[in-house]
Amino acid sequence: MKIFIVGGVAGGASAAARARRLDESAEIVLLERGPDPSFANCGMPYYIGGEIESRAKLLVSPIQRLIDRYRLDVRTLHSVESINRAEKTVAIRELATGAVATESYDKLILSPGAAPVRPPTPGADLPGVYTLRNLDDADRLQGATARAKRAVVIGGGFIGVEMIENLTRRGLDVTLIERDVQVLPPWDAEMIVPIAAELVKRGVRVLLGTTVERFEQAGDGLRLTLDSGESIAADFVVMSIGVRPENTLAVAAGLEVGPRGGILVNPHMQTTDPDIYAVGDAVQTFDSVTGAPAQVPLAGPANRQGRIAADHIFGRDSAYRGTQGTAVVGLWDHTAAMTGLSEKACQRQQREYQKVYLHPAHHAGYYPGAEPMTLKLLFDPETGHVLGAQAVGGAGVDKRIDVIAMAIQAGMTVYDLEESELCYAPQYGSAKDPVNMAGFIAAGVLRGDQPIVHSADLLAGACDGATVVDVRTPTEFALGAVPGAVNLPLDELRGRLGELPEGRPVIAYCQVGMRGYMATRLLNQSGRDARNLSGGFTTYARVAATK
Amino acid sequence: MKIFIVGGVAGGASAAARARRLDESAEIVLLERGPDPSFANCGMPYYIGGEIESRAKLLVSPIQRLIDRYRLDVRTLHSVESINRAEKTVAIRELATGAVATESYDKLILSPGAAPVRPPTPGADLPGVYTLRNLDDADRLQGATARAKRAVVIGGGFIGVEMIENLTRRGLDVTLIERDVQVLPPWDAEMIVPIAAELVKRGVRVLLGTTVERFEQAGDGLRLTLDSGESIAADFVVMSIGVRPENTLAVAAGLEVGPRGGILVNPHMQTTDPDIYAVGDAVQTFDSVTGAPAQVPLAGPANRQGRIAADHIFGRDSAYRGTQGTAVVGLWDHTAAMTGLSEKACQRQQREYQKVYLHPAHHAGYYPGAEPMTLKLLFDPETGHVLGAQAVGGAGVDKRIDVIAMAIQAGMTVYDLEESELCYAPQYGSAKDPVNMAGFIAAGVLRGDQPIVHSADLLAGACDGATVVDVRTPTEFALGAVPGAVNLPLDELRGRLGELPEGRPVIAYCQVGMRGYMATRLLNQSGRDARNLSGGFTTYARVAATK
Ligand SMILES: Cc1cc2nc3c(=O)[nH]c(=O)nc-3n(C[C@H](O)[C@H](O)[C@H](O)COP(=O)(O)OP(=O)(O)OC[C@H]3O[C@@H](n4cnc5c(N)ncnc54)[C@H](O)[C@@H]3O)c2cc1C
Ligand SMILES: Cc1cc2nc3c(=O)[nH]c(=O)nc-3n(C[C@H](O)[C@H](O)[C@H](O)COP(=O)(O)OP(=O)(O)OC[C@H]3O[C@@H](n4cnc5c(N)ncnc54)[C@H](O)[C@@H]3O)c2cc1C
Ligand SMILES: CC(C)(COP(=O)(O)OP(=O)(O)OC[C@H]1O[C@@H](n2cnc3c(N)ncnc32)[C@H](O)[C@@H]1OP(=O)(O)O)[C@@H](O)C(=O)NCCC(=O)NCCS
Ligand SMILES: CC(C)(COP(=O)(O)OP(=O)(O)OC[C@H]1O[C@@H](n2cnc3c(N)ncnc32)[C@H](O)[C@@H]1OP(=O)(O)O)[C@@H](O)C(=O)NCCC(=O)NCCS
Repeated sequence: MKIFIVGGVAGGASAAARARRLDESAEIVLLERGPDPSFANCGMPYYIGGEIESRAKLLVSPIQRLIDRYRLDVRTLHSVESINRAEKTVAIRELATGAVATESYDKLILSPGAAPVRPPTPGADLPGVYTLRNLDDADRLQGATARAKRAVVIGGGFIGVEMIENLTRRGLDVTLIERDVQVLPPWDAEMIVPIAAELVKRGVRVLLGTTVERFEQAGDGLRLTLDSGESIAADFVVMSIGVRPENTLAVAAGLEVGPRGGILVNPHMQTTDPDIYAVGDAVQTFDSVTGAPAQVPLAGPANRQGRIAADHIFGRDSAYRGTQGTAVVGLWDHTAAMTGLSEKACQRQQREYQKVYLHPAHHAGYYPGAEPMTLKLLFDPETGHVLGAQAVGGAGVDKRIDVIAMAIQAGMTVYDLEESELCYAPQYGSAKDPVNMAGFIAAGVLRGDQPIVHSADLLAGACDGATVVDVRTPTEFALGAVPGAVNLPLDELRGRLGELPEGRPVIAYCQVGMRGYMATRLLNQSGRDARNLSGGFTTYARVAATK
Repeated sequence: MKIFIVGGVAGGASAAARARRLDESAEIVLLERGPDPSFANCGMPYYIGGEIESRAKLLVSPIQRLIDRYRLDVRTLHSVESINRAEKTVAIRELATGAVATESYDKLILSPGAAPVRPPTPGADLPGVYTLRNLDDADRLQGATARAKRAVVIGGGFIGVEMIENLTRRGLDVTLIERDVQVLPPWDAEMIVPIAAELVKRGVRVLLGTTVERFEQAGDGLRLTLDSGESIAADFVVMSIGVRPENTLAVAAGLEVGPRGGILVNPHMQTTDPDIYAVGDAVQTFDSVTGAPAQVPLAGPANRQGRIAADHIFGRDSAYRGTQGTAVVGLWDHTAAMTGLSEKACQRQQREYQKVYLHPAHHAGYYPGAEPMTLKLLFDPETGHVLGAQAVGGAGVDKRIDVIAMAIQAGMTVYDLEESELCYAPQYGSAKDPVNMAGFIAAGVLRGDQPIVHSADLLAGACDGATVVDVRTPTEFALGAVPGAVNLPLDELRGRLGELPEGRPVIAYCQVGMRGYMATRLLNQSGRDARNLSGGFTTYARVAATK
C-alpha cells in the first residue's frame, strides 16, 4: 500500500501517524511544500507575541521523529503540482531544484489546509501586508514586530484578536479594522460586547463596519485609506479576514467542491474519487446539529478527520460525525467559547429556537476569586434539545461550553442539563452549576414557569404598553435602568402590588434575571400577566450597546 | 397547602425556595435547629483557614432574605422532635425556651443532613475533639486554630484533606491519621499517590493504616494513643471519619431506612409515607450507573433533590435520576476529581470493566504553563459504555471529569469520546483533548489495536516469562525502570528487533503509554505477541507505591 499525503501538518501528519500504526509495511509519503511538517499553527500568534519563547516549541513532531518513529517518507519543500486520477499519479516539484517527478499512489490524502484570503483591494499585495498561515509567515511577522510601533489588524476573527493581544503585548499601537459590526463574528453580537470593551480599554483603536479602500507604500511603512475617507499610517498590516479552502489541486483534478470551495467528502473523508481522501480546512463537511454543509477551519476536526481517512484506507468504517462548531478564543483574561448553533445561525437557517441568558459566577460566590460569566443557551422550543451555547467571561468558560458540547453531541435536552451531576467544591463550581442553572431556566421557559421577554424585542418596541418594573434595589436602579421602568424592589413587591396599574402586562427585570423571575412568579400567581427580561439589565445593556 | 421542612440548609432551603416559586399561597415553614439557615457548609474549611475572610460570606441566603423574598416562615433554633404520621403533626421544640408545640402539616420534607461519625474510642468525646458540620463547629474550630500549634486530623476524606490544607495555611503542624491504606478513599489508591506525596512535601505527617485507641486530656491539650503503640500530643483533633444519615426522626416515625441508615425514598423523594419527603445527606438513593443503592453526601444532589421534592408536592412528575458520584477536591495546587464508578466499586460489585491510564497535559504542551494530569477511564469491556473516570493533576482536571460525567449521564461510549468536539486553543486544551485521547486509547483496546497489560498485574507476576522492553531513551531508563526491563528506544526498535528473544511475549512500556503503544503496533505487526503497559512507567511507579 502506497499512500501519498499532501500537506504535513494537522490533518496530514495525523493521517500519516495513524496510517503507520495501522500498517507497519505501508509506504507513506508525507509531502509538505513548507520547510516544516507537524507544527503548531495555533501557537504562532503567541510566538510572535513572545509568550511562547522559542520557535522550536512550535515543532510538535520534529521531522527526524516522523522519520525514526513513524517511518514516514517526509519530504518538505516538496509541492504537489497536479494529480492524474486516471493513472493514479501525482506530479511533485522539489522546490530547491524545481525538478518535477511523477509518482504513483494507491491512495492519496489531501490535507492542504486553507489559504488566508487577500482581498482585491489595491495595494493588498504590498510587502508590508502580512498574512499568517505557516512558520515562515510567523518569522516574518515576528521580525516586523520587532521594528515597528504601529500595526493595523484587518479582520477581528480568531486570528485577528489573537494577533491584537500579541502585538499589544509587544508594545505596539494597534488599530483593528473590521467590516462586520462586531468582532468575533461567529458569536452573537451582544455576547461579544465585553470583549470589544476590553479591546478599547487596552488602547486598541477599534473601527467596526469599516473597510480599507487602498494600501500605499509611505516611506518605510504603509498608508491605508478607509471607506470612511480617513487615512491611517502603519508600519505593517496583518490581514486576517478569513481563509478559503486550498482546493487548486482538487479542482484541477476534477474533484467536486462545494459552493464555498470546500472539497466534497463523504463521512469517511473520501472525495468524489474513492481513492482520494481529503481532510481538514480544505473540505466541506456538515454541521452535526443541522446537517447543513459546513466549512469550519479548526484543528480538532482536521486531526480527527486525518485519523478517520487513514482508518478507512485500512478497511475500518470510521466515520466523521460532522462539525459542531465548538471553538474558544482567549483575549487577555477574557475567554469566549461556543458550541453548536448561534442565534444568527438559527436565523440564517430559519430554524425555530428559544434562548435564555444567565450571568453566573464560575465558582461559588462565597469563595474568593469568583469570576462572572455570561452564558447563552439556545434550544428547540418544542423538544428542548440543546442547539447551541455561548459563554463569555474568564475562568471556567471553556469548561461549561465543553460540557454543553457533550450534551449536544449526545442529543440531550435542557431537562437533562437540569439533572446533570457535575463537580462541586467551592473553588471549582457551584452546587447548582451554571450548566444546571441554564437547564433550570430553559426548562422553566418551556414548562411555562418562566415567561420571558428578550431585550432585543423590548428595545424593538414589542412590549410597548407594558409596565416595566425594575425589581432591584433603589441603589442599583439609580446606576442605570431601562428607560421608563418603575422601581419596585423584589423584597417589597408583595406589599406594593397595588402600585402596578391593573390590566396591563408587566415586564419585570433585575440585574441578571433571577429576581426578575421571582417577581414574575409572584405576579403571575397574583393574576397579573408578567414576563421576565431574560438575563436582566446586564443582558439589556449589552444588547442595547449593539444597536 | 402547609409544608414543613426539617433542616434549613442545602436540601431544605432549596425545597423551600422552589416551593415558594411554585405556589405563592402555600404556607412554608423552614425549621432549623441551628442558629443559621442557608449557609455554605462547603466553605467552612476555607473560613477556618482564613481563605474566606468573613463568616458573613458563608450565609448564602441571610435569614431576612428568606423571609422577605421567599416569604418563608423561618424558625431557627427550632428542633423537630417527633413526627406523628397518623395525625400529620410534628412536635417542635423552641431551643431558647425549651417549649414544645405541636403543629400539623400537609406535606413534610426532611432534609436533616448527616452527622459526623464519632467512634466509640475512649475519650473521643473530649472537648478538644472537634467535628465540623455547621457554623457553630466552624467557629469553635476557628477559635481553636488561633490558639494552637499542633493538630491531628483523623480521617483523610474530603473534609479531612480540606482541613489539613487549611490548618497548614494557619501555620499549624498537622498529623493525619487514616485507617485506610490511602487518603481520599473514593478514588483508587494509585490515583491518589501524588496527593499523598504532596501532603508529605508540605510537612504533614501522614499515618495510614492507623487508628486511635485512646484520647486523653493532657494539660491544655490532648494525648492520642495509636494502635501502633505510639502516642501523639495535639492541641486539638478534627474528627472527619465520615457521616451517617441523620435518621432519628425518620426511624422513630417508622419510616423505612436502608442498611446504612439512609431514609428510603422513591425517585420523587417520597419516603415510605407519601406525605413525607426526604432529601439530601439523610437519604439512600441509587447509583445512576449501576442502579445499586447509594448514599452520597454531596451538595449538588441535596440541592436538586430538594427541588424535586417541592416539584412533586405540587403535582409535577420530576424524578431524581440517581447519583453518579461526581466529586472534586482541591489540595493546594492539586485537584482530584471523579465521576461514576471507581475500579474498587467495580470490583466490589463484581462488575466487568476495562480501564486505561493516560497522563496528558491540561493544554497544548507548546504553550507555557501546561500542567500534567493523570486520567483513568473505566468502561464496559463489551459495549464500551463509559463507567467512570478519575483525574488527578492541577488545572483542567475538573473540566475533563465534568465532560466525562456528561458522557456517562448520556450513556455514551468510548467511541463517542473519540469523536467529541471540544474547545481548543492552546491556552485551553489540545486539538486532541485528553477526553478524545482517553477515547482513542480505550477504543483501541476494545478494537484489539491496543493490547495492554496493567501495572498491578505485572507487579503481581502475571507477566512472568515475558520480555519487558523499556522503549524510552537511555537517559529516561537510567532514572528508574521496571525491574528486569531491557532498554530498546522506540526510535531504534525497528532496526533492533533481533535483540528481542523469539517466542516469548513482550511487554513494552514508556513514560506515559504512547511510545509503548507505538512499539506494540510495530512488534505485533512483526509477528510478536506484544502488549503495552497502560499509563507507562508513570502509572507503574504509582501502583508500585501502593503495594
Ligand atoms: C494563526 C493560526 C491560529 C490558529 N489557532 C487555532 C486554534 O486556536 N484552534 C483551532 O482549532 N484551530 C486554530 N487554527 C486552525 C488550525 O491550525 C487549522 O484548522 C488546521 O491546522 C488545519 O489543518 P490542515 O491539515 O487542514 O491544514 P494545515 O495544518 O494548514 O496544513 C496544510 C499544509 O499543507 C501544505 N500544502 C498545501 N498545499 C500543498 C501542496 N500542493 N503540496 C504540498 N504541501 C501543500 C501547506 O504548506 C500546509 O503546511 C489556527 C490557524 C492559524 C493559522
Ligand atoms: C465541611 C464540609 C465541607 C463540604 N464540602 C463539600 C463540597 O465541597 N462539595 C459537596 O458537594 N459537598 C460538600 N459537603 C457536603 C454538603 O454540605 C452536604 O452534602 C449538604 O449540605 C447536604 O444537604 P442537607 O440538606 O442534606 O443537609 P445539611 O446541609 O447539613 O442541612 C441539614 C440541617 O438540618 C438541621 N437539622 C437536622 N435535624 C434537625 C431537626 N430535627 N430539627 C431541625 N433541624 C434539624 C441541621 O441543623 C442542619 O443545619 C461538605 C460538608 C461539610 C460539613
Ligand atoms: C502529532 C501528530 C504528528 C500526530 O501524531 P499521533 O501519533 O497521532 O499523536 P497524538 O499525540 O495525537 O496521539 C494520538 C495517538 O496516540 C495514542 N496514545 C496517546 N497517548 C497514549 C497513551 N498514554 N497510551 C496509549 N496510547 C496513547 C492514541 O490512542 C492515538 O493513537 P490512535 O490514533 O492509533 O488511537 C500530528 O497530530 C501533528 O502533526 N500535530 C501538530 C500539528 C497540528 O495539529 N496543528 C494544529 C494544532 S496547533
Ligand atoms: C440558595 C438557596 C436558598 C436556594 O435558593 P434558590 O432560590 O433555589 O436559588 P438558586 O440560586 O439556586 O437559583 C435557582 C433558581 O433561580 C432560577 N434562576 C437562577 N438564575 C436565573 C436567571 N438568571 N434568570 C431566571 N431564573 C434564574 C433558576 O431557574 C432556579 O429556579 P427554579 O428552581 O424555579 O427553576 C439554597 O440552595 C441554599 O440555602 N443554599 C445554600 C446551602 C447549600 O447549598 N449548602 C451546600 C453547598 S455549600
